[in-house]
Amino acid sequence: MQVEGKQYRTVWLEGSTLHLINQPMIPHRFQVVTMARYNDTAKAITDMVVRGAGAIGATGALGMAQAVLQAPDEGFHEFIAKAANVLRGTRPTAQNLFYGISKVLDAVQEAGDNIPDARKAARAAAQDVADDDAENCRAIGQNGLPLFHHGIRVSTHCNAGWLAFVDWGSALSPVYAAHRAGLTPHVWVDETRPRLQGARLTAWELAQEGVSHQVVADNASGYLMRNGQVDLVIVGSDRIAANGDVANKIGTYTSALAAKANGIPFFVAAPTTTIDPDCPSGDSIPIEIRTQDEVRYVWGWSDDGRFTRVRITPDASPGHNPAFDVTPASLISGIITEKGIIEATTRAVTSVARS
Amino acid sequence: MQVEGKQYRTVWLEGSTLHLINQPMIPHRFQVVTMARYNDTAKAITDMVVRGAGAIGATGALGMAQAVLQAPDEGFHEFIAKAANVLRGTRPTAQNLFYGISKVLDAVQEAGDNIPDARKAARAAAQDVADDDAENCRAIGQNGLPLFHHGIRVSTHCNAGWLAFVDWGSALSPVYAAHRAGLTPHVWVDETRPRLQGARLTAWELAQEGVSHQVVADNASGYLMRNGQVDLVIVGSDRIAANGDVANKIGTYTSALAAKANGIPFFVAAPTTTIDPDCPSGDSIPIEIRTQDEVRYVWGWSDDGRFTRVRITPDASPGHNPAFDVTPASLISGIITEKGIIEATTRAVTSVARS
Repeated sequence: MQVEGKQYRTVWLEGSTLHLINQPMIPHRFQVVTMARYNDTAKAITDMVVRGAGAIGATGALGMAQAVLQAPDEGFHEFIAKAANVLRGTRPTAQNLFYGISKVLDAVQEAGDNIPDARKAARAAAQDVADDDAENCRAIGQNGLPLFHHGIRVSTHCNAGWLAFVDWGSALSPVYAAHRAGLTPHVWVDETRPRLQGARLTAWELAQEGVSHQVVADNASGYLMRNGQVDLVIVGSDRIAANGDVANKIGTYTSALAAKANGIPFFVAAPTTTIDPDCPSGDSIPIEIRTQDEVRYVWGWSDDGRFTRVRITPDASPGHNPAFDVTPASLISGIITEKGIIEATTRAVTSVARS
Repeated sequence: MQVEGKQYRTVWLEGSTLHLINQPMIPHRFQVVTMARYNDTAKAITDMVVRGAGAIGATGALGMAQAVLQAPDEGFHEFIAKAANVLRGTRPTAQNLFYGISKVLDAVQEAGDNIPDARKAARAAAQDVADDDAENCRAIGQNGLPLFHHGIRVSTHCNAGWLAFVDWGSALSPVYAAHRAGLTPHVWVDETRPRLQGARLTAWELAQEGVSHQVVADNASGYLMRNGQVDLVIVGSDRIAANGDVANKIGTYTSALAAKANGIPFFVAAPTTTIDPDCPSGDSIPIEIRTQDEVRYVWGWSDDGRFTRVRITPDASPGHNPAFDVTPASLISGIITEKGIIEATTRAVTSVARS
């Protein structure tokens, strides 16, 4: 997508140098950081300079290719094996990370003992991972576009935009497609406490693209729906169970309840790689409980421009911080994938995951 | 209620000096401020040193009494009339404020031309307003108590505790009653963005009283309900329509939807003065849209102890900030009043308002 008139992806490789958009600095500053060596890239994943399933997967693949390009001829395979371990250890629960790394390792293995061929194959395989992610997201945008009409008002939660992928995003991709088609969508951006990915990342993406939007407290989205100010809800997903239940950022469930109560279509947008056919239902999806300090403190920019935190609770009051929730399939109007819009049913979900 | 082992109300009069708990400083510091003259009291209401319907009503009454006590014998009635105008102008939409002031003015009028009698009557009338508020809230606690069982887990939104009234509170009064009865309730405190009355005031109240609690992002309350971690929801109210629809802090509606979807009782606690029999339904209740800066900035305490704000949105992104929402009567299990628990129906609500 464009930033200040220039085209960007969240991550890319030039020679053997990896480039990343520094996401924690958004929206305060747009900054591209470069990683000279694969272990710099690994540290950037750990430090969440890059986040979002698709973006992490591509960074893992490109970081792995970086290692292959930089591995010495002597001890070539040992260097690569060690690099794979380092990269795999950065975000231990990120399915896309393992996928991206293994795609590059497979390519290296196929190249056999020819080191120049292995380097070429690694770069190509990593580039494929990144390109596939971007292309899947672009297709999600096109497939979601028929849901939009002129002047549509869309509510979204968290950040499922291009910053979470290589390009385009999942939930925001149809919004961008609609915007470029001249349909002038307006987006209600849930701020998405506690980590505020909506207020920071989604709002910034939409502002860059010139899409009309307003940030609201998460508490306001139900009111807006009941008040007739929302035509469509689209959210992303962290994992889709075989029965169509969807795990996504905490707060997605209440947004879906409000949509259902007010007859508003509620769609999930995700590449089919998000489907976990081995997970029978949402009840099997473990919910990460994160540090209570994310509730007790809010991070932002002070009036003098420092990124800093303020405490909002009494010292004596503990917090509780579940990071995701599960929206049952019965509340979901459909799932927008790169292969088309499917119903949130066992038959549709398992069939698209197999195709 | 007790603070650091000492008994407090939110507002009280000693001689002709008015005392107020300085609410914006909570939870960072507990501080009582004194208002020597009625116009200091008026300024404290405007500046929201005191907030909450019951607390504002009592402060208006006690501030009016303060003016009567301080009015010179010469021009006594002119002084009082002017003071009433000043006090009425502090929070132009606060129904309880007008009620408190008029009670004192009525008492002065009944006393006729005897100025010492008028002063005595004004003090007594104002004290009655404050005492009635405290007593109504205490009765709400006793009436709500049968809803509690041992170890109950209660979700609440915003601050409907004693800081919003003279004492005890509305939604929190049954919690305090249950706690004192040894039922060891646990309270899930919605932080209540954008103004964070839950994280600041409700959490502080519960910590002072030693009630077990945890603060959660507003997004988490639906998850907790679906996850079987909530037995009861109790919230306060800003206005109750004749048909039982309830206006309350933004986010109450989605909490009610989640309770309904998960078979959890959802109660509103309020003195019957909150009922507006002239308002046929929630659709007639105007919703205040407040400054978008409450969404774009978060106020709290920096690590070095300053009360300061941080910006959480891009400069280019506007916000939208509806302050209240309406929960339809169909989602409400009952209304806990000082006269007992009533159904959220036209018959029950209008009958209790008339009694």
